[in-house]
Amino acid sequence: MAASALLRSRVRRPSYLNKLTKAENLIDLFPHNSYIGWSGFTGVGYPKKVPTALADYVENNGLEGKLKYNLFVGASSGAETENRWARLNMIERRSPHQVGKEIAKGINNGNIKFFDKHLSMFPVDLMYGWYTRDRPNNKIDVAIIEASAITEEGGIIPGASVGASPELIQMADKVVIEVNTAAPSFEGLHDITMTDLPPNRKPYLIMAPEDRIGTPYIPVDPEKVVAVVESDYPDQTQPNSPEDETSQKIASNLIEFLKHEVNHGRLPQNLLPIQSGIGNIANAVVGGLSKGGADFKNLKVWTEVLQDSFLDLFDSGNLDFATATSIRFSPDGFKRFYDGWQEYSPKLLLRSQQVSNSPEIIRRLGVIGMNTPVEVDIYAHANSTCVMGSRMLNGLGGSADFLRSSKYSIMHTPSTRPSKTDPTGVSCIVPMCTHVDQTEHDLDVVVTEQGLADVRGLCPRERARVIIDKCAHPDYRPILLDYFERAEYECLRKGMGHEPHLLWQAFNMHKNLAEKGTMKIDSWE
Amino acid sequence: MAASALLRSRVRRPSYLNKLTKAENLIDLFPHNSYIGWSGFTGVGYPKKVPTALADYVENNGLEGKLKYNLFVGASSGAETENRWARLNMIERRSPHQVGKEIAKGINNGNIKFFDKHLSMFPVDLMYGWYTRDRPNNKIDVAIIEASAITEEGGIIPGASVGASPELIQMADKVVIEVNTAAPSFEGLHDITMTDLPPNRKPYLIMAPEDRIGTPYIPVDPEKVVAVVESDYPDQTQPNSPEDETSQKIASNLIEFLKHEVNHGRLPQNLLPIQSGIGNIANAVVGGLSKGGADFKNLKVWTEVLQDSFLDLFDSGNLDFATATSIRFSPDGFKRFYDGWQEYSPKLLLRSQQVSNSPEIIRRLGVIGMNTPVEVDIYAHANSTCVMGSRMLNGLGGSADFLRSSKYSIMHTPSTRPSKTDPTGVSCIVPMCTHVDQTEHDLDVVVTEQGLADVRGLCPRERARVIIDKCAHPDYRPILLDYFERAEYECLRKGMGHEPHLLWQAFNMHKNLAEKGTMKIDSWE
Repeated sequence: MAASALLRSRVRRPSYLNKLTKAENLIDLFPHNSYIGWSGFTGVGYPKKVPTALADYVENNGLEGKLKYNLFVGASSGAETENRWARLNMIERRSPHQVGKEIAKGINNGNIKFFDKHLSMFPVDLMYGWYTRDRPNNKIDVAIIEASAITEEGGIIPGASVGASPELIQMADKVVIEVNTAAPSFEGLHDITMTDLPPNRKPYLIMAPEDRIGTPYIPVDPEKVVAVVESDYPDQTQPNSPEDETSQKIASNLIEFLKHEVNHGRLPQNLLPIQSGIGNIANAVVGGLSKGGADFKNLKVWTEVLQDSFLDLFDSGNLDFATATSIRFSPDGFKRFYDGWQEYSPKLLLRSQQVSNSPEIIRRLGVIGMNTPVEVDIYAHANSTCVMGSRMLNGLGGSADFLRSSKYSIMHTPSTRPSKTDPTGVSCIVPMCTHVDQTEHDLDVVVTEQGLADVRGLCPRERARVIIDKCAHPDYRPILLDYFERAEYECLRKGMGHEPHLLWQAFNMHKNLAEKGTMKIDSWE
Repeated sequence: MAASALLRSRVRRPSYLNKLTKAENLIDLFPHNSYIGWSGFTGVGYPKKVPTALADYVENNGLEGKLKYNLFVGASSGAETENRWARLNMIERRSPHQVGKEIAKGINNGNIKFFDKHLSMFPVDLMYGWYTRDRPNNKIDVAIIEASAITEEGGIIPGASVGASPELIQMADKVVIEVNTAAPSFEGLHDITMTDLPPNRKPYLIMAPEDRIGTPYIPVDPEKVVAVVESDYPDQTQPNSPEDETSQKIASNLIEFLKHEVNHGRLPQNLLPIQSGIGNIANAVVGGLSKGGADFKNLKVWTEVLQDSFLDLFDSGNLDFATATSIRFSPDGFKRFYDGWQEYSPKLLLRSQQVSNSPEIIRRLGVIGMNTPVEVDIYAHANSTCVMGSRMLNGLGGSADFLRSSKYSIMHTPSTRPSKTDPTGVSCIVPMCTHVDQTEHDLDVVVTEQGLADVRGLCPRERARVIIDKCAHPDYRPILLDYFERAEYECLRKGMGHEPHLLWQAFNMHKNLAEKGTMKIDSWE
């Protein structure tokens, strides 16, 4: 098959061009029950052609449920691939994170076996053989990796994400490369480290977000590369969630707190590296830092994923450097980024998710970590994954990587969310989380649009009072306080009052929500 | 005050001898509400004279509740000091770990404000100022540190533990040194690193348990040292808990598993560094490795605390090197250790708890981490601290430091414990933990005397089946399976079946225990 001039300009390893083929010729590489890895993270840098060809093949041949795969992707992939695979019942097992209506449906109706894991740990657990322990050689069959270019050595220059690609390649018997010519080459934007296993593992010698310790490409054994496919459309991203009044209030409370910490000498004037998640609160916080004017200059970012608001932060002149494992811009954001490549690219570095989310580095740098939960309880445990204890949203992601190891571990959330019948029917502050992903030992600060609870060093009974007082919505404050005071009275009386709970009533607010559409219960009796 | 010849042989800094005094002269250093740090970890290396003098002073002057202190110790201290302080109502606030009947009582009746924290993080959070954030200079008032000797520079050579002493000294306005002449000098046994704050923190360049990166003593600013006291009695330790049939069965299941992992190429022949807790199961596991004969040679240990069984492991010839933050031997064990000093000391290194429990190093080395919980649930969350969700035992300790970051994260527990009326009245495998310290994202293996559940890479519904099948006591297996199957049916039906729970019944076994003395419920209806 002849390579286009564009493709030849991206692939500097001539032998790879001999492996050029079309995705639909690769179906036989993927028998039923294969173990497959995809590149990609937060919906960018994922393979597009081969997954689509496989989905077409299943759809056209009525093979739904007959060609099922064990699928490993650093985090979420594109909706048109992963979600479609879920809809076509092509996913037997999935780890460690996902986004998409159809895949969530498959997980929650029992069709897809989903194991969510710390994003920093997933790649190394994969290398340990944890996910392939019933296979003779501990390997996965095929890794499908999107490249924006190929080096002379045959190394892969990823696109807008690195994710778990290095380890998927290390663990794969065969590698298929999709060279995406519909987006520019990202050459120079990556710092890639491969994974050694203990007892031969080394420190990550990163002392600042801008430090480079690896190669600008992912080394690949060229003999593993069985096929190269040209990919002809860009990442299918969505616009970012806009800020709203609630998220702006949360951001304002948080920025106030950061100023307070600077004033008390616990943070340097330019803060410490910031981690920020995805979503409207994260956008508002980063937006607030852009607009902070003279207050916060020379900021640096150490995070998992960058969204459009970071472009504003660069443009404000307040941001000196940012590093992540993925840049998940909106289509407009990508255009802005490509247009400003000369300006942005020297201030940006993409690393593997094992490094971007590394507890070792997060702790060393003293990161300011910020995340949004499903719910937080009065003692500062948080649920990041399972609504009503059972229904999986997207997975743990990097939340616990950052919240455990950050200098400042911050949970931001609206104090309430709407239920079907009550605009404040769901309190995000609850007596006891129905599922715990972050423990009381990990959170320093809880912040809502109502206020900010600084729980550092407080005992549980102190934490409960301050969280209820500062963070709960006024409609729920008396309900939560009543729970706490009854629990405190009962438990102290019994000599078990360290962290008072009324275990048999702890989920009554959730029960009321399930039965009556609101968490506003009449009484704890 | 004249120094004894023995004391002079230990204190090589002459100016310190000018500061020699008796503990009872130091009462004025400790006004009500002072912030105080003690050396010590797991009941060894704690100061004895000054705490005792303060307790005597309170007792003799009827000052119970009138001289109260904010007390920070790396982990537990000696019963005759800390427990006595609790009994005399001298503790206002305590962090991050404790052991003792009276102090647990004070915490659970609301008298002592206790905040338990990851032992690796407590010292750095202290340095951040988290525990002193309402104080003008973020400092603690006095650190009382036990030394086994003093260097020419005035540096402190600790005794049988390092714990949080480096950071307590860094954060203290004043330092009081108790030189213990009743035990030998431990010079040469320590590798001490002080704590830098971000953005100036460096990697811990430790690639193997025997690597030294610090000094053999804790550097101290000599001007901070306000008094030196001679201490004349050794650490008051207790005998170790003996192995029993149950703990031996657990150990045997675990050792079988480790052999299986070696056979499948996921562990080297000499394993990887072992972490083991305190207690009879830990003793049985280490005992099993001693008796393992030819199977496991050239072992290394990276752990928090060493107990007597490690002396057996050294003596068996199977253990090449061990490092920890504390050696908590029994009185007999200490005698054995001192008698064999020439043999043991070259194979042993004590570090600060920030280093011994460092997630960075634990992860790099690929530690095999083993701990005992209060209870584990069917989805592999674990409760390490709070009985019935509320009553504090000892605190989190280093459990989550190791279980989050180890290569193998293992929870070992008897399948049941006795209640007052039923020898198997408490199941340690429960539908839902009443308190979560370790999440489902952190545990790889759960093991009881019944068997071993290898949950790596399994989705929650798979985990539940294997944990119930392999780990639960036969009396509870049908009860737990019934819960799970009802929950699975209900939740899958509602499209929320990722991690099935019946939230309103999840604690019914605990309720039955509280009301009827056993977790053996008749039905989930």
